[in-house]
Amino acid sequence: MNARLNFKVDARSQETAARCGRFQTARGEVRTPVFMPVGTLGTVKSLTPEELRDAGAQIILGNTYHLFLRPGLEVIRRFKGLHRFMHWEGPILTDSGGFQVFSLAKLQKITEEGAAFQSHIDGSRHMLTPENAIEIQIALDSDIIMPLDWCIGYPAERDDVYAAVEMTTRWARRCRAVWQAKGRPQAALFGIVQGGMHDDLRRRSAEALVALDLPGYALGGLSVGEPAEIMLAVAEKALPLLPEDRPRYIMGVGTPENLVELVTRGADMFDCVLPTRNARNGQLITSRGTLNISNARFREDERPADPACACYTCRHYSRAYLRHLYMARELLAYRLNSIHNIHYYTHLMADMRRAIRKDAFEAFRSDF
Amino acid sequence: MNARLNFKVDARSQETAARCGRFQTARGEVRTPVFMPVGTLGTVKSLTPEELRDAGAQIILGNTYHLFLRPGLEVIRRFKGLHRFMHWEGPILTDSGGFQVFSLAKLQKITEEGAAFQSHIDGSRHMLTPENAIEIQIALDSDIIMPLDWCIGYPAERDDVYAAVEMTTRWARRCRAVWQAKGRPQAALFGIVQGGMHDDLRRRSAEALVALDLPGYALGGLSVGEPAEIMLAVAEKALPLLPEDRPRYIMGVGTPENLVELVTRGADMFDCVLPTRNARNGQLITSRGTLNISNARFREDERPADPACACYTCRHYSRAYLRHLYMARELLAYRLNSIHNIHYYTHLMADMRRAIRKDAFEAFRSDF
Repeated sequence: MNARLNFKVDARSQETAARCGRFQTARGEVRTPVFMPVGTLGTVKSLTPEELRDAGAQIILGNTYHLFLRPGLEVIRRFKGLHRFMHWEGPILTDSGGFQVFSLAKLQKITEEGAAFQSHIDGSRHMLTPENAIEIQIALDSDIIMPLDWCIGYPAERDDVYAAVEMTTRWARRCRAVWQAKGRPQAALFGIVQGGMHDDLRRRSAEALVALDLPGYALGGLSVGEPAEIMLAVAEKALPLLPEDRPRYIMGVGTPENLVELVTRGADMFDCVLPTRNARNGQLITSRGTLNISNARFREDERPADPACACYTCRHYSRAYLRHLYMARELLAYRLNSIHNIHYYTHLMADMRRAIRKDAFEAFRSDF
Repeated sequence: MNARLNFKVDARSQETAARCGRFQTARGEVRTPVFMPVGTLGTVKSLTPEELRDAGAQIILGNTYHLFLRPGLEVIRRFKGLHRFMHWEGPILTDSGGFQVFSLAKLQKITEEGAAFQSHIDGSRHMLTPENAIEIQIALDSDIIMPLDWCIGYPAERDDVYAAVEMTTRWARRCRAVWQAKGRPQAALFGIVQGGMHDDLRRRSAEALVALDLPGYALGGLSVGEPAEIMLAVAEKALPLLPEDRPRYIMGVGTPENLVELVTRGADMFDCVLPTRNARNGQLITSRGTLNISNARFREDERPADPACACYTCRHYSRAYLRHLYMARELLAYRLNSIHNIHYYTHLMADMRRAIRKDAFEAFRSDF
């Protein structure tokens, strides 16, 4: 199954578990560690695919739940998948939709069969099962497909976490069967390890999923409300349980600091709405911390958001202009801020890859 | 004064008053007839300068009233003008602010001195005079500057129109004095002809302003509520009153049909929020009429908005995708629609220039 992505580790940090590698998809190679911007509804909010590429994005995320409801599968099937529909030619990873069913939709009931829910848009009733979660992602023609899992919040009762782990394992087996029967040869199904903040349940989950020999593995159920130290401690214990020769993906995390810490512990892939959401809230992430661009002290500031940054926004616009656009609620504000933040994230990952290749990751991390 | 723009007519239609020409600014040549996209607050809403160029924009508009209130002159002075502030290197025309003072602000009083008003944003009190209207535009470093005028709505009492014409003439003289004393050598001041729908008052206004020997002339006070036939009839009578060797600008008009009709009557320059505002309302202007992209019949429509169009949007996106973005209120919708509509307008102007050069304008117009 590894053949599906042909993941290769090119370099390893000697002092940490950090590693630098690459995997292949039908739509191009992805160098890891990698950050994947989130394109919920078939668009990374406010940006074109060309801008994403220019900002350094290698692979983007699509949200199965959102795309299933809008525009709906018939529309995307007509375009033979999400890529042509949204004009993004690079690789796409889609989640299973489970997370949104549990967090956004009005959840009706979870049974062995799947999760019954009502749309957050129009209240219409649907059922997400392991089988149709995969079938939808095959219709989206995703390059990396995630199985339906049961994500538990924080804090949670151990019994509930246990039940979620067991269900997640059984669902993963059903997902794998559909994927093997119907998936495009190069599309890769990942396993999602659950287990809350319990190391033994994480181990139980990881062992069951590793036995399925999937092309990649993710840690789910992190960044669900727990303190960062707990998240890091759980990831530190769980990451070594995943196969060395498969990419390891931490779902929905996080801040630049957390990304550096998780790469230190051996993680390869990340997604998070933070850079794009913060951009739309006027927060620019820079090498010297976050700028709240609405701050009056930027009113006449001729400097770029980050003088050390080479993104389109920093090459052409001042803090004063960005502040003006943001204060006037001009649409261009969201774009320029998003370009900068995504560029910051993709270049942070590139810096980490470089530091690992030079075996200077520990120095990079302590500088950071 | 004509030297300021060095306007040259390259070709004339023999059957109509349409003409094709060019003028020079310090920031480049402008070929006429030309449509100028409106960049109210130092941004053509949702677009970058590069996108505007790609969509065919030669010159854009800035709104003095809006920029005076936000970000304010101190900010723009620090950037030595609007161009560097907003990263647009091409020519900029700014209005005088008068129109917004009369239409948007809470107008306090019009006196010989100028117009006292309260900001529509914070209620702060300001006074717009012929002198500071020009001084502000000099601070913006505009390439084409408009004088403070008194724009009268429709319908209006003849006495009110007459008073507005006379005040506009006296204000124009004061504007000219400041512009001559303080303007950058290549910045051009236009005259604005008022006179409502009264041909004799339009003539009176035109004659007084033409005597000031300004580098260009505009018709103001059109598209203020009157039927299109009246607008066209008034413009048809007024345009021949303006010097042949100066560009003629119709302010705030309008639909593609009206642009063709006004070029037929000898107009050279236009601005209007219609293409960008309609874009944000989901209306795509095409060679076969307007598409309301929210219409359910576009749900699975794989065709571009306009199969005859070569804009970025039409090259890469389907009606189905544009509809999806618009229905989901995605920020990318406003961009893609705006690119298309501006491209439509700039290419309509290019088509008219071509038809005039081939002396086939009457055929173009009847086809249209």
